[in-house]
Amino acid sequence: MVSKLVSRRDIEFLLYEWMDTTELIRRARFAEHSRETFDASLDTAERIATELFAPHNRKADLNEPSFDGTRVHIIPEVKTALKAFSAAGFNASAKDHALGGMQLPTVVEQACLTYFLAANAGTTGYPFLSIANSNLLVAHGSPAQIDTFARPVIDGRFSGTMCLSEPQAGSSLGDIRTRASPDGASPWGPRYRLFGGKMWISGGDHELYDNIIHLVLARTPDAPPGSKGISLFIVPKVLINANGSPGERNDVALAGINHKMGYRGTVNTLLNFGEGRFTPEGRAGAIGYLVGDPHKGLSYMFHMMNEARIGVGLGATALAYTAYLHALEYARSRPQGRRIGARNPATPQVNIIEHPDVRRMLLAQKACAEGALALNLYCSRLVDDKTTASLPEDRARATLLLEILTPICKSWPSQWAQESISHAIQIHGGYGYTRDYPVEQFYRDNRLNPIHEGTHGIQAIDLLGRKVVMDQGAALLALHDRISDTIGRARASSLPLEDSADVLENTLNRIVSTTARLHDAGDEERKLGNATLYLEAFGHLVLAWIWLDQALTTEGKVGDFYEGKRQACHYFYRFELPGVGPRLDLLDRLDQTTLDMQDTWF
Amino acid sequence: MVSKLVSRRDIEFLLYEWMDTTELIRRARFAEHSRETFDASLDTAERIATELFAPHNRKADLNEPSFDGTRVHIIPEVKTALKAFSAAGFNASAKDHALGGMQLPTVVEQACLTYFLAANAGTTGYPFLSIANSNLLVAHGSPAQIDTFARPVIDGRFSGTMCLSEPQAGSSLGDIRTRASPDGASPWGPRYRLFGGKMWISGGDHELYDNIIHLVLARTPDAPPGSKGISLFIVPKVLINANGSPGERNDVALAGINHKMGYRGTVNTLLNFGEGRFTPEGRAGAIGYLVGDPHKGLSYMFHMMNEARIGVGLGATALAYTAYLHALEYARSRPQGRRIGARNPATPQVNIIEHPDVRRMLLAQKACAEGALALNLYCSRLVDDKTTASLPEDRARATLLLEILTPICKSWPSQWAQESISHAIQIHGGYGYTRDYPVEQFYRDNRLNPIHEGTHGIQAIDLLGRKVVMDQGAALLALHDRISDTIGRARASSLPLEDSADVLENTLNRIVSTTARLHDAGDEERKLGNATLYLEAFGHLVLAWIWLDQALTTEGKVGDFYEGKRQACHYFYRFELPGVGPRLDLLDRLDQTTLDMQDTWF
Repeated sequence: MVSKLVSRRDIEFLLYEWMDTTELIRRARFAEHSRETFDASLDTAERIATELFAPHNRKADLNEPSFDGTRVHIIPEVKTALKAFSAAGFNASAKDHALGGMQLPTVVEQACLTYFLAANAGTTGYPFLSIANSNLLVAHGSPAQIDTFARPVIDGRFSGTMCLSEPQAGSSLGDIRTRASPDGASPWGPRYRLFGGKMWISGGDHELYDNIIHLVLARTPDAPPGSKGISLFIVPKVLINANGSPGERNDVALAGINHKMGYRGTVNTLLNFGEGRFTPEGRAGAIGYLVGDPHKGLSYMFHMMNEARIGVGLGATALAYTAYLHALEYARSRPQGRRIGARNPATPQVNIIEHPDVRRMLLAQKACAEGALALNLYCSRLVDDKTTASLPEDRARATLLLEILTPICKSWPSQWAQESISHAIQIHGGYGYTRDYPVEQFYRDNRLNPIHEGTHGIQAIDLLGRKVVMDQGAALLALHDRISDTIGRARASSLPLEDSADVLENTLNRIVSTTARLHDAGDEERKLGNATLYLEAFGHLVLAWIWLDQALTTEGKVGDFYEGKRQACHYFYRFELPGVGPRLDLLDRLDQTTLDMQDTWF
Repeated sequence: MVSKLVSRRDIEFLLYEWMDTTELIRRARFAEHSRETFDASLDTAERIATELFAPHNRKADLNEPSFDGTRVHIIPEVKTALKAFSAAGFNASAKDHALGGMQLPTVVEQACLTYFLAANAGTTGYPFLSIANSNLLVAHGSPAQIDTFARPVIDGRFSGTMCLSEPQAGSSLGDIRTRASPDGASPWGPRYRLFGGKMWISGGDHELYDNIIHLVLARTPDAPPGSKGISLFIVPKVLINANGSPGERNDVALAGINHKMGYRGTVNTLLNFGEGRFTPEGRAGAIGYLVGDPHKGLSYMFHMMNEARIGVGLGATALAYTAYLHALEYARSRPQGRRIGARNPATPQVNIIEHPDVRRMLLAQKACAEGALALNLYCSRLVDDKTTASLPEDRARATLLLEILTPICKSWPSQWAQESISHAIQIHGGYGYTRDYPVEQFYRDNRLNPIHEGTHGIQAIDLLGRKVVMDQGAALLALHDRISDTIGRARASSLPLEDSADVLENTLNRIVSTTARLHDAGDEERKLGNATLYLEAFGHLVLAWIWLDQALTTEGKVGDFYEGKRQACHYFYRFELPGVGPRLDLLDRLDQTTLDMQDTWF
């Protein structure tokens, strides 16, 4: 049976034909690897995702986590799946051997994770967050902190969370109020007591692992106001003794579970720190250990944000991908109606894939899912290159490209997966609207992705306000070079890609000129007021580039798979990319419609 | 408290300023009415919707109808609400006095129904279907059939359904297989026994009313194949004796309930007719009475389809509208972040309506909700005009306009409400994704609208394949005249609408030329292959016209409300209408991308 999670053929095309992933083996870090070890990891991921994650995806949606006042209840299949995930080493697949990791390239790790995200976004949420949590500690924690708090997460014994938002501070993290009072020393550095409420904490409480390591943003008494006064603390649910054994329950209390439209398998919580529900060492206050320097917590968090945002993009991609494969199977097996112009009722009905409008929706899905996967894996490869490329200039370039592509990698799949999954519902007709088919759940699950880890609008401001101008535009220049390189190769190719190359070049030039125009606008509101349209136009530029580059890779290759790649590229240039024009026109006009609109006029 | 269902101010603007609804009073049918009776109906609708429909909207979503094998259970609030609805006469508001109706103009009736649809789409589903059911019988049933089967529905004692689809025949109704065998005579004309399964039957079984009158499409033994061999039958759940008293249980059995993503309050069923679960008069077979002539069932059904489709559009509009008002309230009361360029953390946070991107999303919602409501009420007025306008040419013109606008009135709100409600979720941030706020339910509820009563793709084929060419293009010409009239008045107006008038004229000319080009393409697949893009471009043309016409109505008027109308029009022309250009470019090229795509390439 062909998997309906992700196309293995496509993953192999992206890893081995489009990108030369096996060349990574020449780098010292990956020297023990080979195409065989990469493929074995993909095999294992596909198997576990298929056998242990996908089967309870609907059950977890229908039986969301519940809180009885003392414990959080989660269906048992989740724990079974997560044990298999940990046992196969996926919590640590890209980590150092010294930390018990496999030292897989990030690009291969992310390809593996795609299977889990496609099979069951909710269950995969737990290790996904834990991986991000342990990555942060490995990067910024002290050796003692890493040993005690990160290793068990890497081993799969503990899980981890990120505690940023508060009820009054979501996108505006500078406004958090959680307090951290000094509370002496510890084997893990300065100790604090934390007091405050944290909102939207995924994986905030459960019994799937032996312990939960919360990474919590809070303010010390001397902290300056705003985002420059935020520190980062390790706050374990159960305190750990100096010898590593479990100690007292820390003063972290579950205040409530959020009941969501989708993504229900991942318990999402409101946590109270230091409310006195538990009294470690005899008094209220959640015990936490400072990570790194005080007041630098947000920068540590943001250091990891690129990966978290690529992770959100990958989650959206995976949902779009599995929805596409489900719609494709349905379209190939559902008879309904007859070909246009051949309506004789005595003839049998045709499968709906014969209808041009169904093929249009399938092409839209293919262009979205495969394009987004290519982008995500490309960005994952940049994560590898920025630390392991041999030449410093290659590392620097990868860093720049990653900076500018991260908002796209997060926002583009999140936004377009929703439309793509909507097509999957539409292809299923009334059936797609029922819970007997999985596509409606994919639709609900994905709707979170444009919200968390920085909303769509926040990505837009990050891109236009920061990324395209950082280092005197160095990131935009680096991307410009990459896209120009593809355009040049497309023109030299034997494939009929000249028109697409022209369109891409024109779009690229327009983006560059629009960027300059907006930054010359003088006033911040005029510059950033329509940033979301800029983000969307920029996203389509990037995807058009990714698609042209994929099409180029098919040069000289024959067969249905390559025809499909070329036609999806053609589709993207014909049906999707032209939507960029009106957005850039509006931006070029420095349109003031939203700025002029008054509250009282609504 | 200002209603968060629909804006009464806007309804009054549309009814009394934009359209001159009070002029209808001069027509004999509406002679007993006045602005006061219209307003009283709106008051009553708003009150009942607010007090009895809205409060259980979430409860009905969380406690969807269930079947214990014998009975369907529905939360009691639904019956209470529906009794109040019937008691206030809304089942019969537009019907003849002779039938117990109020003879309200359809446009006022529909404005009233908007409140109920906004308050609780699921509960409103029952009377909505019943109204359509009784309208059909009144138009095509015999006097005896109307007396026995339509009157109790009009009175609110019975409910009604429409039984069209079967598991193997959804969009392709010509492929239905339900059989109808002659079974003698009856006081209601030729009697038949029906055998077959009907899918997607909303309101198919419940105990909210005393009886359920199913209108069922089936084939008689002599029926030709396809859609020309379909007849229409009245099949009551409980048979009715000649004296009107309830008789035996008919052989209509509930085979299952569909569990949907949204719209959960409306029980949606699979019904088995004639499976022998019940044996009226001692044997299996659902007893039904032929409506009108044999083999004309589909045309009777389609006679009512305009109204049903406007109803779907109105349902989408109502959801978009209430989502907009909820988002607006939230944006005005949720502090988060600071103005762009004023990031001093010591200053208080601003309400998010201060952020241009939030205002953009609110403007998009306002343009969608108010634009769609205007379109729906305009089409409802055409329903009035086609039967009650004094001049035959006015009636003929209304008929033509209604024909061509119906696919837009159905598809445009259905499609864009989904994006609009998505904006409402986005404005609420993480809260919008939870079930603590209503917007996620509106999003789930509306996703049905592009599917039922003719999918989005079916509307496209109806518009491009039939409506724009019917009567030698008479409907398109009639619409062209209306739009041209608005363009002329905009140019003569003292408001700065000249640019918009030019853009609208250009778009209109492009649509006309694209229409001709597609119909000259010769081959049916090339003509209709990209019909959906045509539908979407045409929809935006219509909404741009509706918006310009609304803006014109504000000439010489001052105040926030009118400023808002003008700015929403401006927004639509700046942000939404330009998206039409690339769609028409693609259509003009007779793009073959989807036709060329092969099944095996996916």
